[in-house]
Amino acid sequence: MSRFYKRIRKRAGLSPGTLLPPEERKVTKVRLSLFDYDERRFEEKELQTVEEAFPFKEKPTVTWLNIEGLHELDILEKIGRNFNIHLLVLEDIASAGQRPKVENHDDYLYIVLRMLDYDQERKTIQGEQLSIILGSNFVILFQEREGDIFNVIRERLRNNESRIRKSPADYLAYRLLDTVVDYYFVILEKLGEDIEEVEEQVMGDPSEDILHDIHRLKRELIYLRKSVWPLREVINGLIREDTRLIQDTTDVFFKDVYDHTIQVIDTVESFRDMVSGTMDVYLSSVSNKMNEVMKILTIMASIFIPLTFIAGIYGMNFNPEVSPWNMPELNWSLGYPFTLSLMLVMAFGLIFYFKKKKWL
Amino acid sequence: MSRFYKRIRKRAGLSPGTLLPPEERKVTKVRLSLFDYDERRFEEKELQTVEEAFPFKEKPTVTWLNIEGLHELDILEKIGRNFNIHLLVLEDIASAGQRPKVENHDDYLYIVLRMLDYDQERKTIQGEQLSIILGSNFVILFQEREGDIFNVIRERLRNNESRIRKSPADYLAYRLLDTVVDYYFVILEKLGEDIEEVEEQVMGDPSEDILHDIHRLKRELIYLRKSVWPLREVINGLIREDTRLIQDTTDVFFKDVYDHTIQVIDTVESFRDMVSGTMDVYLSSVSNKMNEVMKILTIMASIFIPLTFIAGIYGMNFNPEVSPWNMPELNWSLGYPFTLSLMLVMAFGLIFYFKKKKWL
Amino acid sequence: MSRFYKRIRKRAGLSPGTLLPPEERKVTKVRLSLFDYDERRFEEKELQTVEEAFPFKEKPTVTWLNIEGLHELDILEKIGRNFNIHLLVLEDIASAGQRPKVENHDDYLYIVLRMLDYDQERKTIQGEQLSIILGSNFVILFQEREGDIFNVIRERLRNNESRIRKSPADYLAYRLLDTVVDYYFVILEKLGEDIEEVEEQVMGDPSEDILHDIHRLKRELIYLRKSVWPLREVINGLIREDTRLIQDTTDVFFKDVYDHTIQVIDTVESFRDMVSGTMDVYLSSVSNKMNEVMKILTIMASIFIPLTFIAGIYGMNFNPEVSPWNMPELNWSLGYPFTLSLMLVMAFGLIFYFKKKKWL
Amino acid sequence: MSRFYKRIRKRAGLSPGTLLPPEERKVTKVRLSLFDYDERRFEEKELQTVEEAFPFKEKPTVTWLNIEGLHELDILEKIGRNFNIHLLVLEDIASAGQRPKVENHDDYLYIVLRMLDYDQERKTIQGEQLSIILGSNFVILFQEREGDIFNVIRERLRNNESRIRKSPADYLAYRLLDTVVDYYFVILEKLGEDIEEVEEQVMGDPSEDILHDIHRLKRELIYLRKSVWPLREVINGLIREDTRLIQDTTDVFFKDVYDHTIQVIDTVESFRDMVSGTMDVYLSSVSNKMNEVMKILTIMASIFIPLTFIAGIYGMNFNPEVSPWNMPELNWSLGYPFTLSLMLVMAFGLIFYFKKKKWL
Amino acid sequence: MSRFYKRIRKRAGLSPGTLLPPEERKVTKVRLSLFDYDERRFEEKELQTVEEAFPFKEKPTVTWLNIEGLHELDILEKIGRNFNIHLLVLEDIASAGQRPKVENHDDYLYIVLRMLDYDQERKTIQGEQLSIILGSNFVILFQEREGDIFNVIRERLRNNESRIRKSPADYLAYRLLDTVVDYYFVILEKLGEDIEEVEEQVMGDPSEDILHDIHRLKRELIYLRKSVWPLREVINGLIREDTRLIQDTTDVFFKDVYDHTIQVIDTVESFRDMVSGTMDVYLSSVSNKMNEVMKILTIMASIFIPLTFIAGIYGMNFNPEVSPWNMPELNWSLGYPFTLSLMLVMAFGLIFYFKKKKWL
Repeated sequence: MSRFYKRIRKRAGLSPGTLLPPEERKVTKVRLSLFDYDERRFEEKELQTVEEAFPFKEKPTVTWLNIEGLHELDILEKIGRNFNIHLLVLEDIASAGQRPKVENHDDYLYIVLRMLDYDQERKTIQGEQLSIILGSNFVILFQEREGDIFNVIRERLRNNESRIRKSPADYLAYRLLDTVVDYYFVILEKLGEDIEEVEEQVMGDPSEDILHDIHRLKRELIYLRKSVWPLREVINGLIREDTRLIQDTTDVFFKDVYDHTIQVIDTVESFRDMVSGTMDVYLSSVSNKMNEVMKILTIMASIFIPLTFIAGIYGMNFNPEVSPWNMPELNWSLGYPFTLSLMLVMAFGLIFYFKKKKWL
Repeated sequence: MSRFYKRIRKRAGLSPGTLLPPEERKVTKVRLSLFDYDERRFEEKELQTVEEAFPFKEKPTVTWLNIEGLHELDILEKIGRNFNIHLLVLEDIASAGQRPKVENHDDYLYIVLRMLDYDQERKTIQGEQLSIILGSNFVILFQEREGDIFNVIRERLRNNESRIRKSPADYLAYRLLDTVVDYYFVILEKLGEDIEEVEEQVMGDPSEDILHDIHRLKRELIYLRKSVWPLREVINGLIREDTRLIQDTTDVFFKDVYDHTIQVIDTVESFRDMVSGTMDVYLSSVSNKMNEVMKILTIMASIFIPLTFIAGIYGMNFNPEVSPWNMPELNWSLGYPFTLSLMLVMAFGLIFYFKKKKWL
Repeated sequence: MSRFYKRIRKRAGLSPGTLLPPEERKVTKVRLSLFDYDERRFEEKELQTVEEAFPFKEKPTVTWLNIEGLHELDILEKIGRNFNIHLLVLEDIASAGQRPKVENHDDYLYIVLRMLDYDQERKTIQGEQLSIILGSNFVILFQEREGDIFNVIRERLRNNESRIRKSPADYLAYRLLDTVVDYYFVILEKLGEDIEEVEEQVMGDPSEDILHDIHRLKRELIYLRKSVWPLREVINGLIREDTRLIQDTTDVFFKDVYDHTIQVIDTVESFRDMVSGTMDVYLSSVSNKMNEVMKILTIMASIFIPLTFIAGIYGMNFNPEVSPWNMPELNWSLGYPFTLSLMLVMAFGLIFYFKKKKWL
Repeated sequence: MSRFYKRIRKRAGLSPGTLLPPEERKVTKVRLSLFDYDERRFEEKELQTVEEAFPFKEKPTVTWLNIEGLHELDILEKIGRNFNIHLLVLEDIASAGQRPKVENHDDYLYIVLRMLDYDQERKTIQGEQLSIILGSNFVILFQEREGDIFNVIRERLRNNESRIRKSPADYLAYRLLDTVVDYYFVILEKLGEDIEEVEEQVMGDPSEDILHDIHRLKRELIYLRKSVWPLREVINGLIREDTRLIQDTTDVFFKDVYDHTIQVIDTVESFRDMVSGTMDVYLSSVSNKMNEVMKILTIMASIFIPLTFIAGIYGMNFNPEVSPWNMPELNWSLGYPFTLSLMLVMAFGLIFYFKKKKWL
Repeated sequence: MSRFYKRIRKRAGLSPGTLLPPEERKVTKVRLSLFDYDERRFEEKELQTVEEAFPFKEKPTVTWLNIEGLHELDILEKIGRNFNIHLLVLEDIASAGQRPKVENHDDYLYIVLRMLDYDQERKTIQGEQLSIILGSNFVILFQEREGDIFNVIRERLRNNESRIRKSPADYLAYRLLDTVVDYYFVILEKLGEDIEEVEEQVMGDPSEDILHDIHRLKRELIYLRKSVWPLREVINGLIREDTRLIQDTTDVFFKDVYDHTIQVIDTVESFRDMVSGTMDVYLSSVSNKMNEVMKILTIMASIFIPLTFIAGIYGMNFNPEVSPWNMPELNWSLGYPFTLSLMLVMAFGLIFYFKKKKWL
């Protein structure tokens, strides 16, 4: 639940730019790694201190500084001072519940977005905030947790022939965004499978648990939607933004990511429509079942209640000896067979009536 | 279901423009055919290799290269190199789940749209991605499957007098789009018939299966909507786009297609409203039926339960010999007829009551 | 139903501008009539052939050519050639299911709209497509069927003093549109009466048929909405369009029509809200009725089932002679009156309980 | 109901500007009153004929001509001629069902809005159309009925020191609008009280009538919304309109009215949400009640039906003398107490079961 | 309830700018406090009369005048005269139900917003109107009640080193807004907890009260939404407004507040979706329960009713002595065991049938 209102950690009234450590450490030790490359050279190293990264800033080569874990605030502060990052940006990086957005600070672009993962066991979407600082020759990527989906990019970086090695920093930023958005399709696929499964159950013989499954899917879709909708503006912003940090040749790539984002949004909306249709079908099938239960009760009761009444009549103890009007049937020689026949006729009459009503 | 989230086949992190073969081959062999024409000349041939098409590019005549099947990636690559198609465009052509869009690449326009077909047996809409590359004197059409709805256009091409022979390449592109959009009306008509049928069943005596039919119609309409809505922007884009590839005289034709697209969208929305109204009527008629079932049960039970109780009373075995207070009625000479009469009165009273309540 | 997706008659792939005869002839013979007037002169005649109308085109007077029936395609073609009407416009005139729109072809404006009528017997709205060609000194009006609502205009034309006689062709076009939109209010009034009637029935004692009535009203409102919404853009287009065909002095009249159109749309939306509210009330009153039925069943059953049980007890045949523990009550001198009293007490207790629950 | 589609009285085809008398006279005699003032002078008089007002038009002082009752068309026509009012404006003034709007006719502004009143007895909102003609030094106010809410303004006018006396005509128009919009808050307050009352009843022990109350509230809110929404554009239009008739110093006052209008709209939307939430709660509480009824029936039936069955068993007349297998229990010395105990155990078992299910 | 339509206290027709005392005094005595500071100096004092504040206006230092309580109208009037505040602004400050807005009066900005608090006991959101007057070197803050959330800001002001001391008046205004918006997250968190709790109850074993809880949450969300939505425009207005009162360096801070506002709005919308989903689940679980109740009734009745009928048969008193056709079973030596067996077989048959239907 708390995914939805991730506490802005600074308490009301604190100065803007006051960095507070995250509530829970998602990582035991902050991990710093650095890639520095141009078309010919390539360097990759794990850093012990953040200061080791600063000399690369002056080099003309592209530098990718990757930071996993946000709880060591002095690392953030040092980076802020060295790369001239605005205090409010640092605060946003440190506090996890940001809405996806892009900010143009002239010297650098600040991009926030949400890396998602779908835990198919617990059927919930997990989100992690990614913050990207895109400068003229560097990209700084802040992640909340260790581990990511960018290994393919790292692989490409190590390859001398790859396009990424021949391109400036904005292309690296594009590749990061593209990878994140592509991964949304994986989540959509998994969600789609779950929706399909729920749909099939509802069409077949739904248990009551299905109600909770539908509700859960609805909630995950609300969350997904909340994470993906703002991305549209973000990437559109990147394309429209009048900045020298993104080159015209990279624009076409961002447009491609934009198309994918729209596709994700479209699919999320379709999923919402479908899940809500499934709910309707479920509710309606519950009504249908109740109807069926009621019919059986009505048939049983309607057939046997009159018969029981007749049996009750001839179970009465009026004294036939007092007067010939008192229950003379009891002394008829065919009283019993006749009564049984009457009962049979009534039963078949009612069965025929229910057949005509198409209840049987 | 997978129609809704057609996997973007490139896995997260792969370089943009990496072509991957489609997951399933929808065609055994890629079929290449070519039409080359101007007002006087006309040439039509089946190609064995894609290279045969390249010389036509230099000719001033209009060339239509038609490619059915997408799994031979080297054909795509060769076309890309020869016609200077951007890598991302090739990737979009190769991956099937694109959202309809138009891209202006100066030298050519790239148009993606969705050819639809309604399988009235299985009551589902089938989609196939069409990619159109419109250059100054050529049109390349990529289809996923063999067979299409463009034979009428081919027929017109073979006719020396036809307008299409006297017009440049953008007119051919218009005819392709127009044919696709016109075919949407065929689908609307079939869907409309199915909606009408479902409506009539719901108004009459609906079986429970109708629920699934309504749900299915809803889902198909979600899919249709998802395919058609973006088309509006696409064709509007074609009209607004500042490109020398579409001539002013062709604009009026694209406006006509635009009007038809709006009409399709309007109708899809009306259909959605109608199907959802049908669902309401169905749910309400289920309630009404339950009501009727309950009434019959209530009538039967209410009438016979008190009668049975009276019969039960006089079935008790209190000993009249012990005291005159014990069931003296049993020894009355008219006890039995009187009791029967009492029962009749009660029954008619209740029947009258139910009549007044308009349950009978 | 077919109102909603009126088949675009040209089959997919036919050349644009291919005229096809309408599927059903709504008129046995095409009727051509012509009004030619200026402030001083007035001429009115029925034409045998369309060629008779052509000389009037050259005259400076205003000419109104009225064509009822669309199935004689050569009339359309001749008019097209003589008045320089675009092929696509002719096609739109001939095919009935057009969405209301306005097209500026420099020399003339092409306006499509929908003349509606409400058949209060069959409770359905009938639509007829009107196409208006407005030139600098002529108006051509195409109707699908014979008979219209424009007789008042004809009357005014015959009157030398009327404003219409002193005004140019755009004022005549305005009067035609105004008359059509005014007639929508008549339809709204009739629909409003039907909605009110349904509402009163739902509030009172609704039969099950009311469900179908509500559904029908909903469907008619969907259709009405689909016909009226686009009109807003049409008339706005006429006001905004930069054309010398509509003079500044006429603009104020079109603004008046625009206001009326908005009013129609507003009312349609209010009607939709009201009908959908009526549906809710109906559904809820069905639930209430079921509740009432259930209460009666529960009251009857709850009161008599325990009593019958007691009667059943004393109907048992345990042998009191075997032991004093076996049904000694049967031999009590006040056993029977006591049992009856017990029953009365139980019955009144339950009645009191149900009174407290406000079920009685 | 007819509030929603107030007939545009002119029949289809009548010339624009044809004045028709209103269908019902809401006033026996048209009442004309006039205020003429500037900072020093003040004149107030009841007019016998409208001609008495015309000389004031030439004076530089501000003139307020107030007309109550619209059925004397020649008064309208005379005013129209004398003040140069457009025919269409006169027609709009005379026909009651206009949508709120503002029209800039250079020499004067024409403002239509809706004066509302809430009849708390009959629980309906009554509307009256107000038409304001704002000229450079005069305001003409047309009302359908006698009596209004502007007495406070008249009081201020009689006061030499009041701001209104020192201000030009646009300020008077502002005061009229402001008074009307302020009065909407009174209606909101009354409606709010009714909503609250309905809500409390629904939360407590709702009768079935509440359904009609909710529906009525919904309908009144639809009507209120329809009257208030267009006002937003009207007042925005007054602020944006480029006219010398409204001075820059008055703009800030119109902005104030604009804020109030937005507040009214906001509240209407919140009310709609709340009423619709109340409907949901009501429907749900109906379901809950049905559930409770069903539980009682089920408990009663489930407990007594098996017991009655057992009693039935021992009421059978199998002959124990024929064989020892026939109902030996009847001759057991503890048969009866044992049977009664068995019944008690069964009853308590079932009661325990229902307790566990939390039905009791 | 009255939160939603807080009476605009001036009665219809009163002059604009007429100050009326608030209906209820929320504070016994108006409290005036003042902070005057620049980078070096800092002065803080409680004022006895508002006149004490006026000299500070002329000083170049930043002055924060804080006023708690609005019922002493002459204080408002004096401030209005001294600081040149427009009459309408004073009226808005004095009347509590304003919609959040910003007004640019050249010399000062007038900002209204809503301070919210969530009373977790009574589960309602309390609102208090804050009015901020931002001049070139002063900020006047009007609060309805005593006590606020700005102590952290006061603390910072007392600190010589704080950024706020080095910044102009617009930065103080930003800090006030920021604090208010940050506090919304606290409310969201509390509401989120309540929603989660309700959700868990609905998923588990909901009591009927949950219905009222859901309704209450819905209403609070409507209120929250109404308070927060307009804030978006307000802060956007502050950023866009072309005023020298907000410096370019402060813009980035307002953008930060803007982001937070969007986040609050997003979360409110998600909450609405979730609460409405919870309602659906609740309704559906009510249906499911009813279904279960019906099943138990049906099972009990269907099993025992036929058995009771059989018992009834053999309770009949037909005289076997009259004829061998009359109830010969009674004299069979195995009549009773056979009948009991028949009953057992029927019971098990029905149980088996219900098992197959998955009701047991």
